[in-house]
Amino acid sequence: MIRDVERNPTREGVLEAAAKIVAILPPTPLLPVEIDGVRLHVKAENLQPIGAFKIRGAWHRLSALSDEEKAAGVVAVSSGNHAQGVAWAAKRLGTKATIVMPRDAPQVKLEGTRALGAEIVLYDRQGEESRDDVAEKLISEHGGILVHAFGDPWVIEGQGSAGIEIAEQLGHEPSRIIACCGGGGLSAGLSLACPDAAIVPVEPAGWDVVGEAMRRGEVVRVQDNPPSTICDALIPTATMPINLEVLTARADPGVTVTDDEVRDAQRFAFLRLQLVVEPGGAAALAAALAGKVALDNDTVIMITGGNVDPQRFAETISTAG
Amino acid sequence: MIRDVERNPTREGVLEAAAKIVAILPPTPLLPVEIDGVRLHVKAENLQPIGAFKIRGAWHRLSALSDEEKAAGVVAVSSGNHAQGVAWAAKRLGTKATIVMPRDAPQVKLEGTRALGAEIVLYDRQGEESRDDVAEKLISEHGGILVHAFGDPWVIEGQGSAGIEIAEQLGHEPSRIIACCGGGGLSAGLSLACPDAAIVPVEPAGWDVVGEAMRRGEVVRVQDNPPSTICDALIPTATMPINLEVLTARADPGVTVTDDEVRDAQRFAFLRLQLVVEPGGAAALAAALAGKVALDNDTVIMITGGNVDPQRFAETISTAG
Repeated sequence: MIRDVERNPTREGVLEAAAKIVAILPPTPLLPVEIDGVRLHVKAENLQPIGAFKIRGAWHRLSALSDEEKAAGVVAVSSGNHAQGVAWAAKRLGTKATIVMPRDAPQVKLEGTRALGAEIVLYDRQGEESRDDVAEKLISEHGGILVHAFGDPWVIEGQGSAGIEIAEQLGHEPSRIIACCGGGGLSAGLSLACPDAAIVPVEPAGWDVVGEAMRRGEVVRVQDNPPSTICDALIPTATMPINLEVLTARADPGVTVTDDEVRDAQRFAFLRLQLVVEPGGAAALAAALAGKVALDNDTVIMITGGNVDPQRFAETISTAG
Repeated sequence: MIRDVERNPTREGVLEAAAKIVAILPPTPLLPVEIDGVRLHVKAENLQPIGAFKIRGAWHRLSALSDEEKAAGVVAVSSGNHAQGVAWAAKRLGTKATIVMPRDAPQVKLEGTRALGAEIVLYDRQGEESRDDVAEKLISEHGGILVHAFGDPWVIEGQGSAGIEIAEQLGHEPSRIIACCGGGGLSAGLSLACPDAAIVPVEPAGWDVVGEAMRRGEVVRVQDNPPSTICDALIPTATMPINLEVLTARADPGVTVTDDEVRDAQRFAFLRLQLVVEPGGAAALAAALAGKVALDNDTVIMITGGNVDPQRFAETISTAG
C-alpha cells in the first residue's frame, strides 16, 4: 500500500506529536544524577508503559492512519522495542499488527509483543533473507502499512516529542542531549525538537552506521562480519536517507561504546538510579560515565529502554565492573 | 539534648514539609500500572536520590533544627534507608550524622550511608544491647539530636508529603493508598496528608507490629522468635505511641505479606515497571498482586525503596515465581 513517507519530518510535527502523546502518556521523569561531580539529568524513557521510548513514534504514526489504512493493518520490523510500541498503539486503535522479529530477540521482548496481541513472524538474523525482505513479502501478499522503526517522518517526529518534554521539565532547552542510537530515529527527532541543543548519538562499537554515514555523507552498511554486541536494540545494518538528512544538518557524528562500558552503565543505573536498563538503553549513559562526552548541568542523558531478560540482567549486575 | 518531640504531627505540618521538599527534590513519578484488569498507579519513591522515601522525613526534620542543634549533630538508628536520608540531609546542611546500623544491613545501604559522609556505629541485631540502647549511650556520651526513624512528628509529616504530591499528580485525592509499613511513619504521614483516602499499611508476615497495636489499642512488641523475613526495612520491634495515635484515628489494621509474595512483586516491578525494588519496598505491591487489598482506578501503591544488594536481587529475578 502506497503512502507518503517522503515528506520531511518537521519541528511542527514534533510539537504535534508531543501534544498527542502527553494526552495519553504521563511524561517520563527527568531524574537528577551526578557524574564526575557534575549534576545533570537522565530522561527515564525505560519507564514508558512498554519499557521504551518507541511508544512515542509508534503512537504518532498509527494514530495518523486513515480508516482505510487501519483496516489494512500495520507491519513492522523490530528487535523488540519498536515491536512493542507498534503493538501497543495497534491494540489501542483496534488495528492488526504483524511484526517481523529476529529469532534471537530477547525473550521479554518477544513475550511483551505477543502479550499486546501482535502477530509475530520470526526470521534468522544470519539467514539469507533480510528482515526488510520478509516484511516486503508479507505486505505484497497480505497488504498492510509498513511502519519503519526509524526511517519514517512520523516515527522521527514522535521520538522527538521526548525533547519537547525535556525542555518543559528543565524549564529551558538542554545544552546537550546524549542519545542511544540505532538507526537514528530518536537522534533525528531530538534534533528537530531542540534546535539549540547539541545532539550526541551513541552507537555500539563497530555498529556506528549513523556516525559513519555522517562522516561519509551517504548511507553506508555496517562492516562485514561486524563485532558482536550486547546492544540488541541498536544494530540495524544501515541508517536511512531521511535520518541522515536531518542529522547532517544538525549534529556531529557521536561516539561509540563497548560492551564493558554498557555493562558498567547498567550497574550504575541499578545501584544509583534504581532503574532496570537494557544494554541498548544504557549506551548514552555508558558514554557519559566513560568520559567520552563533555557534561554540564544542562546535559540530558537518554535512558531509552529497560526490556532485558532476567538471567542476562542478573549476570550483569552480579559481576563486578 | 532535650527537644519537643511530644507535639502532634499535623496536616499543616505535612503541607509545610511538601513545600520544603518540592523545592529541592523533583516529585517522584506516579506511574500507570494494570493489575487484574484494573488500571491504577504506583508512586515510585525508590527513584528518590537516596533510593527511598525516607529522604522526605529526614529533610523536614533536619532542616528544622536550630543552629545549636545542628552544631551538636544528629544521631539515627536505621537498617539503611532512614540512615541514608539522614546522612543526605546532614551533608546538605553541613551537620555531623552518626548512624547506628545493624551489622547485617544490606551492603549497599551501609556503603550508601558511608558515601554520604555519615559515621556508622554497628550493632548486632541478635546481641544483648538494643539499637535504641546503643543510640542512647552515644547521645549521653557525645551529645547529638536523635532523629527517630518513625516516631517523630517531623519525620511523620515529611513522609506524608508523598501524599500531597500524589494528590497533585492525580488531580484529586486517591481513594486508597497501599503503603509498605515498618514502624508506621509513612502510613501515619499519608493519613494526615490525604484525609479522605483509605490508608492500608502492609507489613511482613509475623512482623505486623502496627496492625497488632491497632487491634489491641496499645503498642506491642513483636512476638518472641519472630519468623525470618527478607524485608530488612520493615522490622522494627514495635511501633511508637505517636504513630499509633494517628493511625488509630484514621486507618484500619492492614494486611501482611509473605516473602514469596514480596519476591513476586519484585519480579513484577523488574519486568513490567523497569524498577529496582528492594523487598521492603515491594510489600505494598505484593499485597495488591496477591489480591489482598481491593483495587480501583484511584488506588495508589507506594513503592518505597530500591536499595538492594545486587547478588540478592539477581537471585530473586532469575528464580521463577
